[in-house]
Amino acid sequence: MNTKPFLHTILSPRLLELYDVTDSIVVVIDVFRATSTIATALYNGAVRVIPVASVETCIETGNATTNSITAGERDGKIIPGLQYGNSPAEYPRSFIEGKTLVLTTTNGTKLLHMALQKGASEIITGSFPNLGAVCDHLVQQKKNVILGCSAWKDRFNLEDTLFAGAVIHHIKEHFTIHCDGSLMAEEMYCAHRHDMFSFIQKTTHWHRLASYGLEKDLQYCVTENAANVLPVYKDGDLLAL
Amino acid sequence: MNTKPFLHTILSPRLLELYDVTDSIVVVIDVFRATSTIATALYNGAVRVIPVASVETCIETGNATTNSITAGERDGKIIPGLQYGNSPAEYPRSFIEGKTLVLTTTNGTKLLHMALQKGASEIITGSFPNLGAVCDHLVQQKKNVILGCSAWKDRFNLEDTLFAGAVIHHIKEHFTIHCDGSLMAEEMYCAHRHDMFSFIQKTTHWHRLASYGLEKDLQYCVTENAANVLPVYKDGDLLAL
Repeated sequence: MNTKPFLHTILSPRLLELYDVTDSIVVVIDVFRATSTIATALYNGAVRVIPVASVETCIETGNATTNSITAGERDGKIIPGLQYGNSPAEYPRSFIEGKTLVLTTTNGTKLLHMALQKGASEIITGSFPNLGAVCDHLVQQKKNVILGCSAWKDRFNLEDTLFAGAVIHHIKEHFTIHCDGSLMAEEMYCAHRHDMFSFIQKTTHWHRLASYGLEKDLQYCVTENAANVLPVYKDGDLLAL
Repeated sequence: MNTKPFLHTILSPRLLELYDVTDSIVVVIDVFRATSTIATALYNGAVRVIPVASVETCIETGNATTNSITAGERDGKIIPGLQYGNSPAEYPRSFIEGKTLVLTTTNGTKLLHMALQKGASEIITGSFPNLGAVCDHLVQQKKNVILGCSAWKDRFNLEDTLFAGAVIHHIKEHFTIHCDGSLMAEEMYCAHRHDMFSFIQKTTHWHRLASYGLEKDLQYCVTENAANVLPVYKDGDLLAL
């Protein structure tokens, strides 16, 4: 009998509803840049990250939370009414340690709340900067896994897929994988793991963000294990395990 | 000014609604095996193929249509009440010439009807056996294109993605492509175009169908230009252009 847990990859939030997640860990992946920034802020000593869906909630939550900052961007600029942006470079230890980051993002936050509503057994966030921590946790937990690509406005993107592939490449022997999305993701990661920064420049999201002058951010966001912490969602907060 | 039309790839029917298709040709792709069988039947002289969503409609349409046959499978077996299956090997010229094929399939028919409801400018079907005809037509028309993977119960599959990649590889210089799905599909096709039959054996759908003894069917379904005809949807029928 095969007793390894299952692992599936969903390539867009729209495909989450095809899976029962009640007995699964859902890994929310939003490489450019929400989950990279979450890992970085927590790695650098943020008390917690509160992911919120709207600007209004972000401002309200910021006002109600001591020692907090609000953050969010649209089109590469800080959203009016918020204090900081989505860049991991904005959250060094000297700034973020001991603070609560209230963060609104479009794609990653949406998928996280979908997974929550569908009753996921556990929700964690993944990105290249915390690849190792995600892999170690999934292997230890021995539970079913959904690797959830946040995509861009529900459209498939490569950067989230490549991260899913990285996870699969490192932990696949511990899981039962009958999933073409996972097969493809791992193959794309293996084909580009050694030229990640040049390959990622072909993607649609890179073109979008590079036009805002964010190349350095994007290079950081595909750097493995630069902020190796595990963000776990609990009662509205993302906390470092 | 860039005057090339746009080309996008959707990896599941669930992602079709993210695109405006009213000015686009939608290519319905269901490699295993609906669109391969449609191309083969028309190539071998079928008058038309009528794609229908349900078994009931299949039987009714068959009864109302002279010189027609009804076809459809579930789990590799002919559906009770229908006459033939989904295998392209069932439709040689000696059998299908001059007949109308009334065909019910799960994934491809669903996507075709979705594209129709969304008001696609034109709907054609694509598969490896009619790759060349699809490519020639898309280049000639100079219109926006949606390559629509029928997937399996809305879950991403590799065989439809590989065919989308084949189309992109052959016609990309004629189109504007800002679409990570297309980039990935072409790369997967180029990586496997010379080992297609061995690679396809890693996919989930191959495992499902091979367990019904359909390996020979599947080999045919990844053979390029074996039935090089262009099925075009018009008023309920798929007709060879």
